[in-house]
Amino acid sequence: MDFALDARTIELRERLTAFMDEHIYPIEPTYWEQLEAQPGRWSPPPVIEPAKRAARDRGLWNLFHPGEEGAGLTNLQYAPLCEVLGRSLHIAPVATNCAAPDTGNMEVLSMFGTPEQKAQWLQPLLEGRIRSAFAMTEPHVASSDATNIETSIVRDGDEYVINGRKWYISGAMNPEATVLIVMGKTDPSADRHQQQSMVLVPRDTPGVDIRRGMKVFGYDDRDHGGHAEIDFVDVRVPVSNLIGEEGGGFAIAQARLGPGRIHHCMRLIGIAERSLELMVERAASRVAFGRPLSDQGVIRDWIAESRVRIEQLRLLTFKAAWLMDTVGNKGAHTEIQAIKIAAPSTVEWIVDKAVQVHGAGGLSQDFPVAEWYAQVRTLRFADGPDEVHKNALARHEIRRMSTRG
Amino acid sequence: MDFALDARTIELRERLTAFMDEHIYPIEPTYWEQLEAQPGRWSPPPVIEPAKRAARDRGLWNLFHPGEEGAGLTNLQYAPLCEVLGRSLHIAPVATNCAAPDTGNMEVLSMFGTPEQKAQWLQPLLEGRIRSAFAMTEPHVASSDATNIETSIVRDGDEYVINGRKWYISGAMNPEATVLIVMGKTDPSADRHQQQSMVLVPRDTPGVDIRRGMKVFGYDDRDHGGHAEIDFVDVRVPVSNLIGEEGGGFAIAQARLGPGRIHHCMRLIGIAERSLELMVERAASRVAFGRPLSDQGVIRDWIAESRVRIEQLRLLTFKAAWLMDTVGNKGAHTEIQAIKIAAPSTVEWIVDKAVQVHGAGGLSQDFPVAEWYAQVRTLRFADGPDEVHKNALARHEIRRMSTRG
Amino acid sequence: MDFALDARTIELRERLTAFMDEHIYPIEPTYWEQLEAQPGRWSPPPVIEPAKRAARDRGLWNLFHPGEEGAGLTNLQYAPLCEVLGRSLHIAPVATNCAAPDTGNMEVLSMFGTPEQKAQWLQPLLEGRIRSAFAMTEPHVASSDATNIETSIVRDGDEYVINGRKWYISGAMNPEATVLIVMGKTDPSADRHQQQSMVLVPRDTPGVDIRRGMKVFGYDDRDHGGHAEIDFVDVRVPVSNLIGEEGGGFAIAQARLGPGRIHHCMRLIGIAERSLELMVERAASRVAFGRPLSDQGVIRDWIAESRVRIEQLRLLTFKAAWLMDTVGNKGAHTEIQAIKIAAPSTVEWIVDKAVQVHGAGGLSQDFPVAEWYAQVRTLRFADGPDEVHKNALARHEIRRMSTRG
Amino acid sequence: MDFALDARTIELRERLTAFMDEHIYPIEPTYWEQLEAQPGRWSPPPVIEPAKRAARDRGLWNLFHPGEEGAGLTNLQYAPLCEVLGRSLHIAPVATNCAAPDTGNMEVLSMFGTPEQKAQWLQPLLEGRIRSAFAMTEPHVASSDATNIETSIVRDGDEYVINGRKWYISGAMNPEATVLIVMGKTDPSADRHQQQSMVLVPRDTPGVDIRRGMKVFGYDDRDHGGHAEIDFVDVRVPVSNLIGEEGGGFAIAQARLGPGRIHHCMRLIGIAERSLELMVERAASRVAFGRPLSDQGVIRDWIAESRVRIEQLRLLTFKAAWLMDTVGNKGAHTEIQAIKIAAPSTVEWIVDKAVQVHGAGGLSQDFPVAEWYAQVRTLRFADGPDEVHKNALARHEIRRMSTRG
Repeated sequence: MDFALDARTIELRERLTAFMDEHIYPIEPTYWEQLEAQPGRWSPPPVIEPAKRAARDRGLWNLFHPGEEGAGLTNLQYAPLCEVLGRSLHIAPVATNCAAPDTGNMEVLSMFGTPEQKAQWLQPLLEGRIRSAFAMTEPHVASSDATNIETSIVRDGDEYVINGRKWYISGAMNPEATVLIVMGKTDPSADRHQQQSMVLVPRDTPGVDIRRGMKVFGYDDRDHGGHAEIDFVDVRVPVSNLIGEEGGGFAIAQARLGPGRIHHCMRLIGIAERSLELMVERAASRVAFGRPLSDQGVIRDWIAESRVRIEQLRLLTFKAAWLMDTVGNKGAHTEIQAIKIAAPSTVEWIVDKAVQVHGAGGLSQDFPVAEWYAQVRTLRFADGPDEVHKNALARHEIRRMSTRG
Repeated sequence: MDFALDARTIELRERLTAFMDEHIYPIEPTYWEQLEAQPGRWSPPPVIEPAKRAARDRGLWNLFHPGEEGAGLTNLQYAPLCEVLGRSLHIAPVATNCAAPDTGNMEVLSMFGTPEQKAQWLQPLLEGRIRSAFAMTEPHVASSDATNIETSIVRDGDEYVINGRKWYISGAMNPEATVLIVMGKTDPSADRHQQQSMVLVPRDTPGVDIRRGMKVFGYDDRDHGGHAEIDFVDVRVPVSNLIGEEGGGFAIAQARLGPGRIHHCMRLIGIAERSLELMVERAASRVAFGRPLSDQGVIRDWIAESRVRIEQLRLLTFKAAWLMDTVGNKGAHTEIQAIKIAAPSTVEWIVDKAVQVHGAGGLSQDFPVAEWYAQVRTLRFADGPDEVHKNALARHEIRRMSTRG
Repeated sequence: MDFALDARTIELRERLTAFMDEHIYPIEPTYWEQLEAQPGRWSPPPVIEPAKRAARDRGLWNLFHPGEEGAGLTNLQYAPLCEVLGRSLHIAPVATNCAAPDTGNMEVLSMFGTPEQKAQWLQPLLEGRIRSAFAMTEPHVASSDATNIETSIVRDGDEYVINGRKWYISGAMNPEATVLIVMGKTDPSADRHQQQSMVLVPRDTPGVDIRRGMKVFGYDDRDHGGHAEIDFVDVRVPVSNLIGEEGGGFAIAQARLGPGRIHHCMRLIGIAERSLELMVERAASRVAFGRPLSDQGVIRDWIAESRVRIEQLRLLTFKAAWLMDTVGNKGAHTEIQAIKIAAPSTVEWIVDKAVQVHGAGGLSQDFPVAEWYAQVRTLRFADGPDEVHKNALARHEIRRMSTRG
Repeated sequence: MDFALDARTIELRERLTAFMDEHIYPIEPTYWEQLEAQPGRWSPPPVIEPAKRAARDRGLWNLFHPGEEGAGLTNLQYAPLCEVLGRSLHIAPVATNCAAPDTGNMEVLSMFGTPEQKAQWLQPLLEGRIRSAFAMTEPHVASSDATNIETSIVRDGDEYVINGRKWYISGAMNPEATVLIVMGKTDPSADRHQQQSMVLVPRDTPGVDIRRGMKVFGYDDRDHGGHAEIDFVDVRVPVSNLIGEEGGGFAIAQARLGPGRIHHCMRLIGIAERSLELMVERAASRVAFGRPLSDQGVIRDWIAESRVRIEQLRLLTFKAAWLMDTVGNKGAHTEIQAIKIAAPSTVEWIVDKAVQVHGAGGLSQDFPVAEWYAQVRTLRFADGPDEVHKNALARHEIRRMSTRG
C-alpha cells in the first residue's frame, strides 16, 4: 500500500494549480459580473474563452478522457486533478473541457459510438466546439427505477419516433448543446434492464420542445445551459442515431456512471476544501464578543470535523478510482456506491457550516458557499437518491455475508 | 395545566382556515405566475389585493397586534393563527397585514413612538397603505454582537446625521416601504448596551442609497421587497425622528424580539406541517421498485420523526407565548431563547426530508419546499446565530444552577 | 391553554421534593455500599426500609395509582411527581411503591382482576409487602410483534399448562416477587390480537425455572430483582388465575402500556434533569488548559441543547398525560407513541454528554450517569423498538392525511 | 498510489485468520464460562494458555513490535493484523502478546529503557511472562491537560519518592502486572512539558496501595486486570528506575501515543466489522410483522452506513500508519489526531446499531456487542477526550491556512 501520488499526477496537479492561480481564480469576479449583465444568456460568459485557450495551450484539455483523444490518465490519476477543478466549479471544468454532462457523453460515444457518430458528435465535443446534454430524468416518475421511464422510442421504418417528457436536462437550454442523448423505452415488454435504449437527438430536430429552465433552489445555472424541461413530440431521428444496440440503454447508463461518480465526488471534495478554507478565513477575521470566531469551541469543532471527514472521503474516492483502474467497474461496485452515498452528505455538512460562519453573507451572491450548497444538495438524489443506493449496498452486503458464512 | 385552545382562538382559527381555503391557497399559482411576469417588481403581485380586502372584511387583519389597533389577542391566542399564516408564507401574512418586518416595526411604534410618529407611520402601516423596513444588520461586522455596529448617528443641531452600510434589510427594495427604522450608535463610548439608538428614516431621504438586492440562495424575494444593501451617506433626519431615548436602541431591539420570535417560530411550524403533508402526499403517490415510497422504512422514519418533532416544538412555542402573556418578556427569556434555537434546525430537518422525497422537483420552482428551505435556513442566523443563543442560554443555565446549589 | 400546575400537584411536588431531600438523596451512598456488601441479594438493601416508612407516613405512597387504593391522581397530576422520583431512579420509586413493573401489574389487577385475584395479589402489592413481575419478552423471537410469542397456555381441565421461555423478566430474580403475570398464547389460530392471554403464576409453582439473571451492559440490577431468564415447563395454574378473558391478553397489554409509558418518560426526564445538573456542576468545577470546562463552547452547546430538548420533551409528555385524562388511551395514541419514540433517544443524548463531561468517572461506579445510560438505552427497545413505533406512527399519519384530503 | 497490501502482510493476515478460526473463536464461550466461574480472578482464564502457545508456535507473537524482538513489521503492515485481533478483543490480543497497555510499555522500554531496565522488564514482557500497567490518569483533575497532573516524584538521595492517586490504571488489578510505569511531576516549576517524568514502580513496592477496581458501565474487565485505583504513599524506587531523563515524561508519553492510537483504531475497526456481521446475521434471521428484519429499510440504512463509514475509517487509519512509517510521528500528526477523533464515534455508532438489532439480547451477556459498546465508549475520552483533540486539530488547521495564504 502506498499513499503517494505518482510523478505524472503530481506534475499535472502543479501545472493545473498554477493554471487555476493565473487563469481561473482571477476571473471569477468578472465571470459573475458578465453573467449578471447578460440576463438571457444560457452559456458561460465571454471571459471563459481566454481561459479555454490557456488550458489547451498548457496541455490541460480533456484531462478526464482516458483514451488517446484525451490525456490518457487513469481514474486514479485524474481524480486529484478533478478535485482541483471542483474548487472553481462553474469555470474550471468548462475551461478545461472537463465539464459534465459532456464528459459522460464523450465517454459513451468513445465506447459505444459508431465511426459516423464519433465523427459527427464526439470530435466537436472533444474540441470544445459544441456542448451536449443527457436526457434521462422524467418529471412524472421516480427515475431512480429505470423501469419507470415513460419516454417511448418506437421504430418506424428507418426512423425512431420519440415521445415523452424529460426535465432537469442539464445544459440543454444552451443552444450550443447541439446534441442530446435521449434514454427511452424501445421494448416495455422486455426484461427489466433490456427495455431501454439510447438515441442521439439533435437539439433542433422538429418536435423537440425546450419548454423552460428548471431551477435549483433559486438558481437557474444558466451559465451551464440550465436544466431544461423538454417535451419530445413525435420526434424522428434516423435509426443510425441509436447508440449501441436496442435494449442496451440501461447497460450504457451504468457504464457511464462509474467514472462520472468519481468525477462528481472529487469535484465535491474540491468544494469541501475551498469551503473549509473560506470558513477558516472568515472565522479568523470576524470578531464577536471580544474574540475572533476562530477561538470559539463550536466553530473549531466544525473545522476539525470538516478536516477529518474530508480526509476519509478523499481516500475512499481514490480507492474507488484505483479499483476501477485495476479490477474494473464491477469490482469497484461497492466502493462506487459508497462514495455516491458518502460524498454528498459529507460535503453538504461542511458547506452548511461554511454558510453559517459567513452569516447572512453565506447565503448571498457575494460568497460562493450558498451556490455550492445548492449544487451539493442536488447530488443527494441525482443519479438516484441516497436511499436507493443505501438499500442496494445493504442488499449486496447481506448477500455477501450470507454466502460467505 | 390545560392543552385546549380557548374558544376565541378556536373560532378565529376556523375562520382563518376557511379564509386560507377560499382566498389564499387558490391564488398561489397565480401569485407566482404574476410575479414571474413582472421581473422588475419588488412588491407582491396584484392578486394579493383581493385577498387583503377579504381579510379585512372578515376581521382577519392585524391579528398580530395585541392592542386596540389590532385584534387584541394575547401571544398565546395569536400563535396558532400565526402557524396557519405560515402555511402560505409569501401570501397569507401580507394579506392579513401580519408580515415581518412590519409587525415588529408597528409594535415598536406602538410602544415607543411619539404621537406624531404614530400618526405619520404607525397609522398607515396598520392600514396596510405603506410598508417598512428595519435596518440593523451590517455587512462588515458580526452583528449578533450589538457593540460591533458601525453605523453612526451623530447629532448636529436639530438633526441626526447617519453614516454607515446595512445589508439584508428585508423589504427595503420595495418603494412602498416608505420608512426605515435604522439602528446605529449615538455614543460609542457609553456602556455596552447604551451606545445604540434607533431613528426613523424616510426611504427617500437624500443620502439613502439603496444599492442592490441581496439574495438568499438564488432567491431575491422581490415580492417581499427583497433584502436591500443600503448605504447611508450623511443622511439627515430631524431629532424628532428618534424612537424612545438616545441610548435606548438596544433595549428597544430586545423588546421587539420577543413576539417576533414567537411569530417566526409559529410560521416555521406552519411550514413544517405543510412540508409534512407534501412529503406524505408525494410518498403515497410515487412508486419505485414496485412499492409506493410511503411503504419504505426510511421514509416512514422521516414522517414519524417529523410528527414527533413538530409536536414538541409547537408546545414549547405555546409555552413561551403563555409565559410572555403571564410573566412578561423577562420571565419568558429561557423559553424564547429555546424556541429560537430549536425551531430553525428542527424545521430545516423536516423541509430537507420533504425536498428529498420530491427528488429533483423538490429543488424546483414547481413545489414550495426548496424556497421554504431557504427561508428556514436564514433563521439559523437571523436575529443572531444559533451558536450565540446557545452560548447565552448555557451561561444562564450554569449561573442558575450555581446560585441554587 | 394553561401551563401552570394545579395546586394539589404543586403541593405534592413540594412535599415529595422535601422527602427526596431528607430521605432519598442522603441515603444514596449507603444504598450502594450496602448492596455492594451483599453480593447474593436480589432486592433493595435494608436502608430502603426507613425510606418506605417515611413515604407512607407522609402520604407519598402509591402516588401512581389513579383509584381509591392510591393517591387518586390524574396522569397529568402524577407526571411531575414521577419526574421527581426518576431523579433517584433506584431508590425513590421503590420507596414510594411506585416502581415498575409493580405499578403496571397493580393497574392490570385493578382493572381486570377478579375480587379473589385482587385480595390475593393486588392488596399485598399495594401495601408493598410483595413484589411482582411481568413475563412477556422471549429470547427466540422479535417480541415487538405479539404474534411471534411462542409460550403456550393450554387449558387442561381446570388448569392452564404453560410452556415456554421468557427473558429479561425484570424483578423476577427477587424471591419477594411472589407472582408473575405471564403472557402466552391460548389460541394460535385465532385472529392476530386474540391469540394471547395473561395468567397469574406464583413464582414458586413447580416448573417455573428461574435460570439466571440477564445483564444490561455489565449491570445485573439485582437491587431491582434483576432481569430473569425463566423456563416454564409444564407449569400448571388453576383456570381462575386467568386475567380477564381468554384471548384478551393483547388488549390488556395495550391498556397497561399507556400510563406505563408516561411513567417511563417522566422518570427519564428526571434522569435528564439530574444529568444536566451533574454536567453543569462537573463542568464548572474542572479546569483544563486554563479555563473551567463550562467556559468551553462545545460543552455550553451541550448544556443549551439539553435544556432545549428537555423542555420540549416534558411538554409533550404532559400533553400525552392530559389527553389520556381527557380523551382516553385511544385519543392519546399518537402522543403516547411520540413520547415513546422521543424520550429514550433524547435522554440518551443528554446522559451521554454528562458521561463525557465526567471523563473516566462518567463510566465508573462513582457517578450515577453510566448506570443511567444503561437504563435509558434499554428503553430504545423495551416495549417495542423505536423503529416499530416510528413505523406505526408514520402509517397512522399517512392514513390520517389521505382520508382528510 | 496503491491500495493493495504487500505480500508479507497478506500472508500474515491469512495465517492470523486461520489462527483465529482454529484457536480463538472456538474458545470464546469457554473463556467467558471459565471467567464467570472464578469470581476473584483478575487475569485471563486458563483457556488462554493453549492459544498463547499456538500463537508462538505459528510465529504470531509480538506482531506489534517493530524491532528485532518482535515481528519487525511496519505500522502499515501491522495495522490489518491488529484489526483481525480486534475481532476477538478480549482474547486475541492477549493470546498473541499484542495487548495494551503492555504493547505501549514495551515500546517505551525499547526506545527509552536502559539495558538494565530492558533486561529486568522488557524481556519478560516480550516473552509474555509478566504483564504491566501505565499509570497516568488521575481522579481529581482533567488529565487531558498534562500540566494538571498532581502526582509528585521527588528525588531524595538515590531514590524517588512518589505520592499521588491514579485511577483507571488498566491491568493493575492483576498481580501478574508486576511493574507500573508511573507518570508524575519531578519539577512543577519547569516549562509546561518539562515538568513530568516517568518511573518504573514494581507493583509490590511498599506504599503502592491498590484500592479497588474501577468499572466501565457495569463491567470490571477483570480478565484484563481491571482498571485500578491506586494510591501512591511515599513510594520509594531507586533513581535508576527513571525512564529517559527527568522532565522527559511528556515527550515519552507522546512517543508512546502514535502507534498506540493506530492499534486502538484498528482494533475498533475489527469490532466494527464483526458488529456489522452480527447485525446482518441477526437481521436476516429474525422475523417481525411478516418479514425478516433485513428487509426493513431502516435496518438496511444502518447496514449501508456502517459499510460506508468503516471503509473510510480504515483507509484513513492505514494512511496514518503509512505516514508514521514514511515521515514519522510529526508528519503523521494530523492523521493520527484525525483517527483518534473519527474512530471511537464512528464505531460507537455501528455497535449501537448492532445492539439495537439484537433487542434485549444486544445489552446482554449472550452477545458481545454491549461489552464492545462499553469498550468503544471509553475511547471517546481515553488519551484525551474528543473535544480536546478536535480543538487541537482545528488550531493546527487555522494556523496552517493562515501561514499559507
